Amino acid sequence: MRNDIIEFTSAYLVNAASVAGRKESEGPLRLLFDSFCSDDRFGQDTWEKSESEMVRLTLKALTDKCGIAPGDIDCAIGGDLLDQCVATSHAVNNSGVPYLGLYGACSTAAEAVLVASLLASTGRRSAAFASSHFCSAERQYRYPLEYGSQRTPTAQNTVTGCGAFLISPDPTPVRITEAVIGSVQDNGVSDANNMGAAMATAAVDTILRYFNSSGRSPAEFDIIATGDLGREGYEIACELLTRCGLDLCGRFTDCGMLIYDIDRQDVHAGGSGCGCSAAVFASYVCPRLISGEISKAVLIGTGALLSPISVIQNKIIPSVAHLVCFERC
Amino acid sequence: MRNDIIEFTSAYLVNAASVAGRKESEGPLRLLFDSFCSDDRFGQDTWEKSESEMVRLTLKALTDKCGIAPGDIDCAIGGDLLDQCVATSHAVNNSGVPYLGLYGACSTAAEAVLVASLLASTGRRSAAFASSHFCSAERQYRYPLEYGSQRTPTAQNTVTGCGAFLISPDPTPVRITEAVIGSVQDNGVSDANNMGAAMATAAVDTILRYFNSSGRSPAEFDIIATGDLGREGYEIACELLTRCGLDLCGRFTDCGMLIYDIDRQDVHAGGSGCGCSAAVFASYVCPRLISGEISKAVLIGTGALLSPISVIQNKIIPSVAHLVCFERC
Repeated sequence: MRNDIIEFTSAYLVNAASVAGRKESEGPLRLLFDSFCSDDRFGQDTWEKSESEMVRLTLKALTDKCGIAPGDIDCAIGGDLLDQCVATSHAVNNSGVPYLGLYGACSTAAEAVLVASLLASTGRRSAAFASSHFCSAERQYRYPLEYGSQRTPTAQNTVTGCGAFLISPDPTPVRITEAVIGSVQDNGVSDANNMGAAMATAAVDTILRYFNSSGRSPAEFDIIATGDLGREGYEIACELLTRCGLDLCGRFTDCGMLIYDIDRQDVHAGGSGCGCSAAVFASYVCPRLISGEISKAVLIGTGALLSPISVIQNKIIPSVAHLVCFERC
Repeated sequence: MRNDIIEFTSAYLVNAASVAGRKESEGPLRLLFDSFCSDDRFGQDTWEKSESEMVRLTLKALTDKCGIAPGDIDCAIGGDLLDQCVATSHAVNNSGVPYLGLYGACSTAAEAVLVASLLASTGRRSAAFASSHFCSAERQYRYPLEYGSQRTPTAQNTVTGCGAFLISPDPTPVRITEAVIGSVQDNGVSDANNMGAAMATAAVDTILRYFNSSGRSPAEFDIIATGDLGREGYEIACELLTRCGLDLCGRFTDCGMLIYDIDRQDVHAGGSGCGCSAAVFASYVCPRLISGEISKAVLIGTGALLSPISVIQNKIIPSVAHLVCFERC
C-alpha cells in the first residue's frame, strides 16, 4: 500500500514575504502584506509585466527580510497561472538563480514548498513562491477588463498577489514536517465559474488521506486551511468531511475567504489564484508561526486544472490538492 | 559559492517507454518506440485528447515493461506544452496516482527526472515523463493546421511523442547520479521561429557549469545530448563551447537532430517540444544504458519559456536548461 505521507527531515522556514494588489490591500489582511500597489500596475505597461514585477518585488522582500542577497538563493521554485507560466519565467530571467518551474494551478504554492523541502535534503536553500494577477488572468481566462463582463455568484476573484517562502536545511524555529502529494480527480463539474465546487473533492481526498495515514488529530493544529475553495467550495468540503466522519474541530478555514471581506468587497464566492494561498500563508500564517503565536498549520493548496481551450471544449475540470504541514520545533 | 551539482544517492532507472506519432515513426528511430499512431489521433476527436491518450499509452507501456500495475507508481511527475498543461492533467485524471505538475517548456523531461530522483530519496518510485503533440502545439502557438502556414528555415517541428522513465530508490544497473538545475536567461532573441538560437546560451551555460564544477571529463561519456536545439541551435552551441574552450570530444549531439532525418523529412531545423528529448532518451539512449551497450549519458533538457501572448507582445524569449546524468553502476 502506498505511503501517503512524505516526511521531511531537514526543511525549515526562514521567513516569508508577500506583495499584493489594490483590492487585497483593502481587505482584512491589509496591514500584513510587505507591500502593495494601489493601481495593480507595479509601474509596468502590460499586466503580464506587472505580474512579473510583483514576483520580483516579493522575492526581493523575502531576501531582504532574511538578510541575504537575492543571488544567495540556491533555487527559485514556483509558477503562476499564465499560459506557459511566463510571469514567473520573466520574473526570474537573468537573475542567475537556478529555477524549477511548476504548474499546479492554484496549488502551486503548496507544491513549491513541497519541492523546496525535498531539495533542502541536498543542502539547498530555496525560495518557494507563486503568483497570480487579476488583470492578466481575466484577459486570459475570461475577457479583457474593458469588456466589463458579469459573473455568477459562485465565481471567484483572482487574487493579485504573490507569496514567497525561504526554505532552508539550516534549523529555524519552524519546520516543514510532512506533505501529501495530491492525485488528480474530477467530480463532473465543468463550470469554470464554479471552481470551488470542482476542487472541493480533491481537497477532501487529500485531507482524509493525511489524517487517516498520519495518525494526527485535527485538534493538534491551530489552522487547517485550503488554498482557494472560496465560500462555495468550502461549504461543499465541510459537508463532505462531515459525511466522511472527520471533524476538523473548528480549525478549518480557506485562504480564499480570509483574503477578502467577502460580503463587502464584491468578490462573489471569495479569492482564487496561485497568489491567494501564497499571499495568505506568507502574510497571515507564517509570521504567527515564526513569532510563536501559533504552533502548527496545514496548507492544502487546491488547483483547478483547466485552460481557456479546455473550457471552450466544455471538458470537465480535473483538480488536485497538495498538503504541506508547518510546525514549530 | 553555490554548489551547482546535485548528487543523488538512491535514484535508479528501472525502465523507459516511448510512444510517437506518424512523422516520428518514419524517422531514424522508427524501430525503437514502444508504439506509434499512424494518424496522430490516437483514436480521439480533438488533438488535446489525442495528446492525453498518448501520455496514458506511454505510462501504460512503462508500467507493463516494468511489470507493475499503473496504480503501483507512487507519483507521476511531468508536463507538456499546452496552456496550463492540460494534456497531462487529463491524462492522469482519476488514475489515483499522486501527481506533481511541472512546467519547464521543452526541458520538462529532464526536470521531471530530476524531481523524481529527489523524491526517490523518500523511498518513492515515480514515473517522470513529458509529452508534446505537433497538432495541438501548432494550433496553440502558431495557426490551426488547416491554414497551411509556412515556416522559416530556422523553425523546428514539434515532436508528436511522449517519453516516460520509472525512477526508483531500489537499485538497478543504471543510476541517476547527478543533476544541474538551469537558471533562466535570454540572449536577446525574440523570434519564436528560432528557438534553437534562443536556447543555445542556456544550454551552454548549464554544460559549462556541469563540467567546471563536477571535475568530470566529457570523454567519460558516451552521449552528451541537448534536448531540442535543432541544427541551428546546435551549431551555435558548438561554436560557443569551442570559444569557451570546452571540447566535448565528439560526444555532443541533440535529440532534435536524432529524431528526424532532417534533410529528408521536411522538418526544417529539426525536432522540438517536450516530447522530443523525452522520446529520444526513452527509445534511443535508455535501452542502450540498460543493456550495457553504453555506460554514461547526459541529457541537457532545453526549454524556451515563451507563450502565444509573449510572442504577440514581442518579448524576448528566456530559456532554461536542466542537466541529468545517467550512469551504469
